[in-house]
Amino acid sequence: MESDFVDWLRGRIPDQPTVHVGIGDDAAVLDLSTHRCVVCTDMVMDGVDFILSECAPRLVGRKALAVNLSDIAAMAAKPVAAVVSLAAHRETPIDVLKEIYEGLLELADAHNTAVIGGDTNSWDQPLAISITAFGEPTSKGVLKRDGAQPGDVIVATGNFGGSILGRHLVFKPRVEEALRLHAEYELHACMDVSDGLSLDLHRMTRASGCGALLNLSTIPISDAAHRLSARSSDELSPLEHALSDGEDFELILAVPASEAERLVRTQPLDMRLTPIGEFVREHGLWQQDTAGERVPLQPRGYEH
Amino acid sequence: MESDFVDWLRGRIPDQPTVHVGIGDDAAVLDLSTHRCVVCTDMVMDGVDFILSECAPRLVGRKALAVNLSDIAAMAAKPVAAVVSLAAHRETPIDVLKEIYEGLLELADAHNTAVIGGDTNSWDQPLAISITAFGEPTSKGVLKRDGAQPGDVIVATGNFGGSILGRHLVFKPRVEEALRLHAEYELHACMDVSDGLSLDLHRMTRASGCGALLNLSTIPISDAAHRLSARSSDELSPLEHALSDGEDFELILAVPASEAERLVRTQPLDMRLTPIGEFVREHGLWQQDTAGERVPLQPRGYEH
Repeated sequence: MESDFVDWLRGRIPDQPTVHVGIGDDAAVLDLSTHRCVVCTDMVMDGVDFILSECAPRLVGRKALAVNLSDIAAMAAKPVAAVVSLAAHRETPIDVLKEIYEGLLELADAHNTAVIGGDTNSWDQPLAISITAFGEPTSKGVLKRDGAQPGDVIVATGNFGGSILGRHLVFKPRVEEALRLHAEYELHACMDVSDGLSLDLHRMTRASGCGALLNLSTIPISDAAHRLSARSSDELSPLEHALSDGEDFELILAVPASEAERLVRTQPLDMRLTPIGEFVREHGLWQQDTAGERVPLQPRGYEH
Repeated sequence: MESDFVDWLRGRIPDQPTVHVGIGDDAAVLDLSTHRCVVCTDMVMDGVDFILSECAPRLVGRKALAVNLSDIAAMAAKPVAAVVSLAAHRETPIDVLKEIYEGLLELADAHNTAVIGGDTNSWDQPLAISITAFGEPTSKGVLKRDGAQPGDVIVATGNFGGSILGRHLVFKPRVEEALRLHAEYELHACMDVSDGLSLDLHRMTRASGCGALLNLSTIPISDAAHRLSARSSDELSPLEHALSDGEDFELILAVPASEAERLVRTQPLDMRLTPIGEFVREHGLWQQDTAGERVPLQPRGYEH
């Protein structure tokens, strides 16, 4: 199987000027415009991150790449290339594999990301896809998660919660958004929310050596979080979904206060940027109660 | 689980000067000494590439990296870094995961390869490990598989066949050997033998637009191929094992005739370099019969 499939893939993938050696040799050779290479890797698995029998194979391939592009975006880097390893059940029809790649390649094309290599395997188990993505820092360097400072405003892109109702398969990685914000504003830190807003914000504070005080009334809650909460079997409020559901793939930013004021007033993106609290000196995650006192907020989300 | 495990891993992995941002952020940032980056990716799976319940977990991690380093070696590049994605069965003890990483890190250390990131997941299925490795070309550039020319001698490192008896878990990727040969000799092409000598040689001829004439009496046959063939249940000769067994992870080189004479006479490596035939104009794989006539040789090996 593999050689036919590799032949198909080579024909499907256009030549790219940054690819010195592409698919078909023992390794690929990528020409970067800088010595500094941003690298992330994420694996998605059938039954955990998607259910192959219940969704379009294109969306599976799309998601496998999108979660990686979201990580590149979180560094405010420009994606340039990716390699794809997969293990598919040996009875997976070749057309399903091709559809998976088509979904992946469509998203890659949209972000000028060259698919430069891969490893296609079969086994008697469900599908697992591992992608490693490469990016280039801009002239401002990368934006890490450990730079938040007490007094910085927490600014979030988009809305939170309920991604499981469908958005987790079709979300747009915030690549262009991160590049634009990094170019035009002074930002201290950035992270993508993959495991839950409160859990990932807590990780960001730990990396930065500070805490965060959330203004819960300002959290942008998605329609899907409301729909999920309205189900009779559901025990969480829309806000609780927004704080704990995984796979939002929105960005949370640490922005100096004066710059945050300009950012929120300007609203330079197609989606809303919302201030949801501030980073504080006290470690941990906090909320303000009705009397104005700080009380601890338990970080919740998806632990792998 | 993941955050404790990531904390352990961060503590286990020494700081490396080439790693600008290491494990713990959304992505890693690697400082290369050149704009050109060699990249390969390979996935190994329980039940296909190893049997986790029957071997030391260290060897599983070691193999996951070794197959990738073999691909970097096949390009005659210098390995510098790797990222590791894995999906483990959710009941896998944490100590087993750590042992897998220890085996991987030991081999990484031996090749000055920094482990700069990863993604650790659990699911209800057997273990799959995907590694992407990065290398740097030397000043001579990379050595591709498509440069073999009619008249070039086929030179092989080491011995072939029977890797399944144990060598597939402990083989040494030919990294130093490839770098040394590339630096000191004029070579036209190189490939690592992962799926079987005759099958991979056939792929090398296809990539190079030529054929290959093997001198079967010169193929270096491993002791393991003899042992495997001697089993009462076995139906292949030692030579057939050498030609078709997968996972030798030796190198096959295309060497101009005069240079091959010098190479074979000098024997610059710790292991034997053996001329096993020549590349020829006629496409396909050939052997000489006892009357001196060329007859086709069927490429055999492991198809994924």
